[in-house]
Amino acid sequence: MTTIAPTTTQQAALYAQVQQFYAHQMQLLDLAEAELWAETFTEDASFDVPTLPEPVRGRPGLIAAVRRTTAQLAEAGQRHRHFMGMFDVTERPDGAVDVRSYTTVYASQIGGESKVHRVCVCEDVLVRSDGALQVSTRKVTRDDLA
Amino acid sequence: MTTIAPTTTQQAALYAQVQQFYAHQMQLLDLAEAELWAETFTEDASFDVPTLPEPVRGRPGLIAAVRRTTAQLAEAGQRHRHFMGMFDVTERPDGAVDVRSYTTVYASQIGGESKVHRVCVCEDVLVRSDGALQVSTRKVTRDDLA
Amino acid sequence: MTTIAPTTTQQAALYAQVQQFYAHQMQLLDLAEAELWAETFTEDASFDVPTLPEPVRGRPGLIAAVRRTTAQLAEAGQRHRHFMGMFDVTERPDGAVDVRSYTTVYASQIGGESKVHRVCVCEDVLVRSDGALQVSTRKVTRDDLA
Repeated sequence: MTTIAPTTTQQAALYAQVQQFYAHQMQLLDLAEAELWAETFTEDASFDVPTLPEPVRGRPGLIAAVRRTTAQLAEAGQRHRHFMGMFDVTERPDGAVDVRSYTTVYASQIGGESKVHRVCVCEDVLVRSDGALQVSTRKVTRDDLA
Repeated sequence: MTTIAPTTTQQAALYAQVQQFYAHQMQLLDLAEAELWAETFTEDASFDVPTLPEPVRGRPGLIAAVRRTTAQLAEAGQRHRHFMGMFDVTERPDGAVDVRSYTTVYASQIGGESKVHRVCVCEDVLVRSDGALQVSTRKVTRDDLA
Repeated sequence: MTTIAPTTTQQAALYAQVQQFYAHQMQLLDLAEAELWAETFTEDASFDVPTLPEPVRGRPGLIAAVRRTTAQLAEAGQRHRHFMGMFDVTERPDGAVDVRSYTTVYASQIGGESKVHRVCVCEDVLVRSDGALQVSTRKVTRDDLA
């Protein structure tokens, strides 16, 4: 077992932290907890996703985006789930963390069927605030768009 | 790297254990290993899922449920896979572990297509028996149900 | 917290390493980085997947397979994503690692829809080369095939 060096144990701690961070963050989103979700981003976070006409910067814009989507889903009688995984994690010398991962968004019609809605690649830069991770920049691309 | 405290290493160990537990548990289910699967629950576990008319308590009911589903799938020429992820893990002071996670169930027609069957949220309480994790209560909700 | 023994911390390090390995390996595949992807296998790796008429042995065959698929996807205007998870990890006394896991392959038509393409079970044997993990044998089965 000499192959598992102490640094690997530390990388493993980071890897688990990253996974726990995303699990909690995405569950907040799917629960429409807009403010709590926004607090998982830095104050001035940059958020660039294909569903928004232009990148958002800062939490008020994030909160507004969640509220809009929540209202649209309620009207359509649908639920969305953001299922992330495949986290490719690289720590920078300054402690920032690059994470490239996949997200499948599922859509369920209440009283109907569940299906794949979107397949996305998510490229984040995470930083720390009092030890906790926060997203400072997020760039999402969709597989169905050129 | 001072941001990764010893407690985080311990939380990371728990996080990995939880993931390994679910991977093994769900593979046992999909392999129709009813008895081995039931042993990943406590003797008096409570199991509340939308596919059952009422909550099951205890292993005999769990085993019966797996056997029923296995027979139905065989008759229909289908395979199911339970793909869990997004584990939001919280340890209680007494050592019990709350886990809220997502499960996608895929259905494949043998000789046909694979598709999303169900998208579920799974809320478990895990406890320890000789160090190993066991489910003491499970509550599953389906995104397509009101 | 006495339930988390030192060995579990070491198992957790392995578990994180395995997850990071697969995240990176599959992202290389989906990026069509054929050579870099092939280097995540041992020189004489055995690769047995249903999409190939017979098992491949060694990196040149792996590289050729990726290039073929890449060309087919480009012609069809599609993207594939390999989303792995549910890693059931067992370390052998000699340090080799058995991993049984699930892979969902998503297909997206560029300008169209995203959907489940395949649901697979992946059985790997991983070995170490200078500390890094490599696949020495891979056997993939598809849920839609008998």
